[in-house]
Amino acid sequence: MKKVVIIGSGNVAHLIGKTLLKKQFSILQVYSKTKKNTITLAKKLKAKPVFTINDIDLTADIYFLAVSDDQVKNVADTLNFGSKLVVHTSGTVSLEVLKKCSKNIGVFYPLQTIKKNDSIDFKSIPVLIESNSDKMLNQLKSLAKKLGAKSYHYNSVQRKKIHLAAVVVSNFSNHLYHLAYDYLQHEKLPFTILHPLIEQSVKNLSSQSAYNNQTGPARRGDKKTINNHLDLLNKNKQLKKVYQLLSDSIEQTYTEKKTIKNRKQ
Amino acid sequence: MKKVVIIGSGNVAHLIGKTLLKKQFSILQVYSKTKKNTITLAKKLKAKPVFTINDIDLTADIYFLAVSDDQVKNVADTLNFGSKLVVHTSGTVSLEVLKKCSKNIGVFYPLQTIKKNDSIDFKSIPVLIESNSDKMLNQLKSLAKKLGAKSYHYNSVQRKKIHLAAVVVSNFSNHLYHLAYDYLQHEKLPFTILHPLIEQSVKNLSSQSAYNNQTGPARRGDKKTINNHLDLLNKNKQLKKVYQLLSDSIEQTYTEKKTIKNRKQ
Repeated sequence: MKKVVIIGSGNVAHLIGKTLLKKQFSILQVYSKTKKNTITLAKKLKAKPVFTINDIDLTADIYFLAVSDDQVKNVADTLNFGSKLVVHTSGTVSLEVLKKCSKNIGVFYPLQTIKKNDSIDFKSIPVLIESNSDKMLNQLKSLAKKLGAKSYHYNSVQRKKIHLAAVVVSNFSNHLYHLAYDYLQHEKLPFTILHPLIEQSVKNLSSQSAYNNQTGPARRGDKKTINNHLDLLNKNKQLKKVYQLLSDSIEQTYTEKKTIKNRKQ
Repeated sequence: MKKVVIIGSGNVAHLIGKTLLKKQFSILQVYSKTKKNTITLAKKLKAKPVFTINDIDLTADIYFLAVSDDQVKNVADTLNFGSKLVVHTSGTVSLEVLKKCSKNIGVFYPLQTIKKNDSIDFKSIPVLIESNSDKMLNQLKSLAKKLGAKSYHYNSVQRKKIHLAAVVVSNFSNHLYHLAYDYLQHEKLPFTILHPLIEQSVKNLSSQSAYNNQTGPARRGDKKTINNHLDLLNKNKQLKKVYQLLSDSIEQTYTEKKTIKNRKQ
């Protein structure tokens, strides 16, 4: 499995393409409808940019469908690769949407937050794989290994659930960082002073559960501090709403536990 | 400034006491009302445990009031150290609440998530300092330096705002980790698979703003994925509420920006 065609020219197409090239794969073509991005990526990958379906090379060993989640089905429905291995790279899309475009289909979903120009090593990317055949699944497993990644076999429903959790821990946390940054900037205070705290909060996960790591006013049921904070946020309705809801949610988490404990006694 | 008395026996008292001892300070006493904790900590610090105010040694150079936020004032009001330097270690409490207990007062607030048995190095703890005199402020500055920490001078209002932001980035993110853990555990899926993603999301802060780092369905305005996730969360009302609010908040953040951009054009 050495010859690859990449369909798509976004963040994941970049990451997978660049890594495959580094690992001596031959990227035959990059196909996508965004002409400029296709040319840029194709150049980086020493591949031929193509813009029409009929020009797609049918001699590749594997076709990566690295387009946005809502486009996977649409694009797949227009393709026909016979029995060549076609994989999509989405966390949210079912395997079966690829059915029409090949007999051998799979999923190769890098569970990571990826931006085009990042140089993330696949060593730090768990890859969630799935296929309609054991043979292809093993091929995807060894492909992940070649790229330096650990692979995990989950079905489409499980992958969707893991993706949901990924949104919660990554996208939502990042949004909290943004809200805090925005607030401090408005108050002419530096966000960077929080970096060590942010890093430590993540480090703590390796020694204890988040449940046990929880600290802060809501964890202590310290209403006075919570109300002081809410007062400080009177002019920042967006953060105030988030502050209120997450504090309530923390209090709820630890009150429930107490209630359960008391019930057991 | 070599002789220290520690008032309090909780997480921060532990951290400060252990670090001071390591740096060759002499901890004369540990005073607190929780007898068991006081004895434990005093033993660790080679200090004398004391339980009544009248027994507190008045020959120390500095008194650390490391009690819980809502207790600082109560405890300070019962003490009188003349002109000895007394500092509290709270992010939320004003400097002035120490007024009654000494002429020389200050704040020494370690901006970090701290648990009793953690072995966090002060190198990764920004210390927020404040005092009612420049001389004492300089003493606190050099004390922080001796412990290996960077110190930052902010007034009480600024410190409260930084503390608020700390709650948002640390306590709230940690709660998101817990909610995701809880959800995956219920679905019999492993939370550890998300560790590399969580770490990368934090690493990204060093190269770009959280605003620019944002990815995910809410960032893209991908309603279909958001609705799929909300459907998956029908049995988990707590996480569903959090998911909805934070997705709305992300969408609001990027829609506002677009509107501003359009207005400028």
